[in-house]
Amino acid sequence: MKKLFGGPGTVSGLILRIGQCLFASASIGTMASSSYFSSFTAFCYLIASMGLQVLWSLGLACLDVYALRLKRRLHNPILVSLFAVGDWVTATLSLAAACSSAGVLELYIRDFELCKAHPELGCDGFQISTGLAFITWSLVAISSLVMIRMLGSI
Amino acid sequence: MKKLFGGPGTVSGLILRIGQCLFASASIGTMASSSYFSSFTAFCYLIASMGLQVLWSLGLACLDVYALRLKRRLHNPILVSLFAVGDWVTATLSLAAACSSAGVLELYIRDFELCKAHPELGCDGFQISTGLAFITWSLVAISSLVMIRMLGSI
Repeated sequence: MKKLFGGPGTVSGLILRIGQCLFASASIGTMASSSYFSSFTAFCYLIASMGLQVLWSLGLACLDVYALRLKRRLHNPILVSLFAVGDWVTATLSLAAACSSAGVLELYIRDFELCKAHPELGCDGFQISTGLAFITWSLVAISSLVMIRMLGSI
Repeated sequence: MKKLFGGPGTVSGLILRIGQCLFASASIGTMASSSYFSSFTAFCYLIASMGLQVLWSLGLACLDVYALRLKRRLHNPILVSLFAVGDWVTATLSLAAACSSAGVLELYIRDFELCKAHPELGCDGFQISTGLAFITWSLVAISSLVMIRMLGSI
């Protein structure tokens, strides 16, 4: 199995995982600190999805640290299959959450201009949180593509 | 390069492409026949994204028919790379469109119950169209995963 940039047990893979954790946590923090977020199912789903992403990425970051410290290779086909499926599922859920929030925001900001009429809604916080969720998704998408590519070379 | 279910130039691949075209066209038709869809950016984006999907899948379906009729193999690495990138991009756009529409629908149906209060909006049409977009995405996701897996085995 080829050793790829962002693969499991590599420094680049660990950096990707840490980035995913940080951006997902920042997205949760910004959304949770915004008022009225609980009135919108899409925003609650964003928090749930980013929470799952933090747990998954943190787990794999710990595994990367273990592999790097003990100089172990995590290129076992069963492990890579598990990482590939997990990354693909979490990437899909993250994109779905970010896009559903973006759809709602588009409606509020552009279509009906409700954010301008009701500044107390705190749309800026929702926007920042959604942007951070998109960054998280792009990092998970990289990991996911690397894993599927590694799986193909088994 | 391994011959996989749903790969280019196979009967299963052709069936997948025809399915993608049909469901994407049905999604466009249902959305375009609903009143008021043009007031929502998310629904307009759904039509644009499904339109792109129809064009892409139709092009690849024609290529599959050509390969099957002339018994040619479409396993050239450059071609497969092009298919993999195109499928991944269109799958991501389809999921993004379906999820942003679902986010808006969730807001209208559940959060603020506007569909019940305003039946003239025709939320049923929006729901059916979004459902069809999700089916289209699942079919494109299968093609995309097959292509990335084939790419990994080059």
